[in-house]
Amino acid sequence: MLEQVVLDQKAGKREYDEKVEAFERKLGELQRELRELAVPVVIVFEGWDAAGKGTMINRLMQALDPRGFSVYPISAPTVEEARRPFLWRFWTRTPERGRIAIFDRSWYGRVLTERIDKLVDKKTWQASYEKIRSFERQLADDGAVVLKFFLHISKKEQKKRFLELEANPVMSWKVTNYDWKHHRQYEKYTQAIEDMLAQTDTAFAPWTIVESHDRRFATLKVFSTAIRAFTERIQPRREANGSTGASAAVKESAPQAPAEAGLNGTSLLDSVNLSRTLTRRAYERKLDEYQERVRELEHQIYLRRVPVVILYEGWDAAGKGGNIKRVTKLMDPRGYEVIPVGAPNDVEKSHHYLWRFWARLPKAGHITVFDRSWYGRVLVERVEGFCSPEEWKRAYREINEMEEQLVSFGAVLVKFWLQIDEQEQLKRFTERQEMDWKQWKITPEDWRNREKWSVYKTAVEEMLARTSTSYAPWTIVESNCKLYARIKTLQTVIKSIEGKLG
Amino acid sequence: MLEQVVLDQKAGKREYDEKVEAFERKLGELQRELRELAVPVVIVFEGWDAAGKGTMINRLMQALDPRGFSVYPISAPTVEEARRPFLWRFWTRTPERGRIAIFDRSWYGRVLTERIDKLVDKKTWQASYEKIRSFERQLADDGAVVLKFFLHISKKEQKKRFLELEANPVMSWKVTNYDWKHHRQYEKYTQAIEDMLAQTDTAFAPWTIVESHDRRFATLKVFSTAIRAFTERIQPRREANGSTGASAAVKESAPQAPAEAGLNGTSLLDSVNLSRTLTRRAYERKLDEYQERVRELEHQIYLRRVPVVILYEGWDAAGKGGNIKRVTKLMDPRGYEVIPVGAPNDVEKSHHYLWRFWARLPKAGHITVFDRSWYGRVLVERVEGFCSPEEWKRAYREINEMEEQLVSFGAVLVKFWLQIDEQEQLKRFTERQEMDWKQWKITPEDWRNREKWSVYKTAVEEMLARTSTSYAPWTIVESNCKLYARIKTLQTVIKSIEGKLG
Repeated sequence: MLEQVVLDQKAGKREYDEKVEAFERKLGELQRELRELAVPVVIVFEGWDAAGKGTMINRLMQALDPRGFSVYPISAPTVEEARRPFLWRFWTRTPERGRIAIFDRSWYGRVLTERIDKLVDKKTWQASYEKIRSFERQLADDGAVVLKFFLHISKKEQKKRFLELEANPVMSWKVTNYDWKHHRQYEKYTQAIEDMLAQTDTAFAPWTIVESHDRRFATLKVFSTAIRAFTERIQPRREANGSTGASAAVKESAPQAPAEAGLNGTSLLDSVNLSRTLTRRAYERKLDEYQERVRELEHQIYLRRVPVVILYEGWDAAGKGGNIKRVTKLMDPRGYEVIPVGAPNDVEKSHHYLWRFWARLPKAGHITVFDRSWYGRVLVERVEGFCSPEEWKRAYREINEMEEQLVSFGAVLVKFWLQIDEQEQLKRFTERQEMDWKQWKITPEDWRNREKWSVYKTAVEEMLARTSTSYAPWTIVESNCKLYARIKTLQTVIKSIEGKLG
Repeated sequence: MLEQVVLDQKAGKREYDEKVEAFERKLGELQRELRELAVPVVIVFEGWDAAGKGTMINRLMQALDPRGFSVYPISAPTVEEARRPFLWRFWTRTPERGRIAIFDRSWYGRVLTERIDKLVDKKTWQASYEKIRSFERQLADDGAVVLKFFLHISKKEQKKRFLELEANPVMSWKVTNYDWKHHRQYEKYTQAIEDMLAQTDTAFAPWTIVESHDRRFATLKVFSTAIRAFTERIQPRREANGSTGASAAVKESAPQAPAEAGLNGTSLLDSVNLSRTLTRRAYERKLDEYQERVRELEHQIYLRRVPVVILYEGWDAAGKGGNIKRVTKLMDPRGYEVIPVGAPNDVEKSHHYLWRFWARLPKAGHITVFDRSWYGRVLVERVEGFCSPEEWKRAYREINEMEEQLVSFGAVLVKFWLQIDEQEQLKRFTERQEMDWKQWKITPEDWRNREKWSVYKTAVEEMLARTSTSYAPWTIVESNCKLYARIKTLQTVIKSIEGKLG
């Protein structure tokens, strides 16, 4: 593939001067339109060392309004970054709607340098193609333009440029032994690059190979490619006259929700045995023991660098808060965090809905407890119409993919649904209203949600069916008896962590 | 000081059980009130190893609504953190209004462990007392409650606890040689702690020494101290019936703005010689040379790990954007970033106004160009009434303090005021309106601001007078001729960096 590229294409100075100014102006215009349409843009630059990525990015920056983009130079992950799933540092840098994120090198490092330098094993880099496709598809489905450029030069040209740099006393430090080593591995890299192109050149995130011997030619190609892609995105939106949905092209490539396997007409929630109880005496005996054990396990996962995610969903007043307090009671605060999830703030709203959760994933060795979670997408956002049916239907797959990445990174993931019945909820609401110091816990919104019990129930059942996976099963916690529920969650957490530690 | 503390104070189990539940409930209530009043709270826990900080923090967490606080365990700075001024990692973690930030160890590490272990030199830790006082005063002036607890145990008690931990197979890993080394240095630490208490026990951020031999006693003391501090803050606010200004206590401790030195009645701006020009030929000859030089210097500051901050302020249409493009034209995008500063978003608004700038300071070896800056506080926010007179008057000192920290950390700081006169601005506005592709650059707001020229002028003059310091002087750039202005800023940047590199 790469060897068929005609590298010596050129643009004359006159042609360049004529075109480049018009291109720059056009890019500025399109950037403003994309901003108005709230389209996020991701631009990736990969390429051979000395192919001119830095210069190219700077030219692009000059054409753009600096209020609307950020540039992220990517090198080896920091210690903090290496303790999260590998896409974490990229997810957290995805742009707000209407902004452009430019990556100088990117997540493709995993299948290029990290592969060649054997920083990850074969299974890991091979598995990352799927994760990368999923990442880019999720962004595209959310409305992003994803552009990927590979700046290509020949081995001979690279050598020439290295020697030139070395001859320049100010620049010579930029060429290291490491660069020469990579130069000698040019053919090996070629193989990796071709694999990468074959595996990740998709309709929603296409690669453009940029012949980069001549910098003017390369610049014009990058600019014109960006102009074409931006225009294609803007055109249908303009015609749709302000519709904010994803473009037609993206819609086509959006995956279908998986078939309704597991939804067999009977109600899972109705079959939960809510009569399970525990005496206070049995509860207190076990509580201390389990809390001590959780603290021990917290230390062990810290030493073994295992990340742990525990998430709670459940009906209002099902007892999530009290349950979390019991599970974390004896934990060392240096090792865990409770993240209560409410409505997204302005900044969060202008990102992909999973962005704020990616950002809060624990680092290896730590525990994060989510009090409500990303499942809000298929619960409250679905029921209240905060997202479109297309969006919440797509979310099952997106969530499964995120959880798969967590688990394949080595995390323990525990998901609790706290189940109570309608009568029990009514009892607890009434109690709260009557007890002076608990009144703040009950709001008119709680009563409104209660009226939608059956709509929520449908959403919960579908969620449980579609997102109970082999790697991330749900645990339904019978919670009419709070004592029983607390002991069950403690037991489940202990068993899950012990299972991981082996 | 410390030796006079009576360490063996105790609370009986009955007394504890009686009080603790009421305290917890009260803390929960006060937390909700502080949230409603949008009061940020900072709680610092320092103390001897094994004094029980972790357990104490966990108890406090159990009493609080998890939606309203974050816990930050602080250890040695990461590589990323070490490349910024030492308070950077704490500034970026200061709480939003209405939230509580709990620090498990803190910025006091600099004058404790870092001092004793000689990780910083004497001059550095001594200078940090002033920086710490400034940091805490700025937070308090912004309305924060700042509480600092020191958990105190005797050397004998510490030894006993270490031995107990070591005897427990699950916990023994927590006691390291390093801990024993610190134990042997108990007296040396005592000296450092007493210095710290003497230097940083202020009215706006008082220390509380917690006698921690008896955990029940310690818990009750921490809880009751917090309750008292929160109540004291809430009381006057309640009485003021919803006033959002700082409390009376804080007002008293707020510093006065410095005397009007430097404002001698004559206008600095009027005396700027705006007739300075440059021919295009002279411009182009110098431009290339200077841009090349800036690129070389960018590489050198990268190698020498010098952070560089270049900030631009100036009249609308003074040419900031075009000027920045020329200065950054040949820079390597991996080494610099342009931060355009507009109105703060919701999250930024709910923090101290300097928070978003602290967060964007460059790491050592990088260049950040601010297109508008923290000076918005004393310009647009002052003129448009977005902050109170008390707030913008206080800001001169706060800004000087922040810049002093930057410079004493080793940064190059260049501040440009781009000066044009009213006629020139009118000419440029009109031009923009007439040129098709520049129309987006001119808004009704620009015309409105123009009408306030003289009010802005007063603010600019005062800003220049009050924030031109020996360590961070302003450079006024005569900008009626854009070519002249660009060459002058390039020259100034070059000279400043060269001066630093020596």
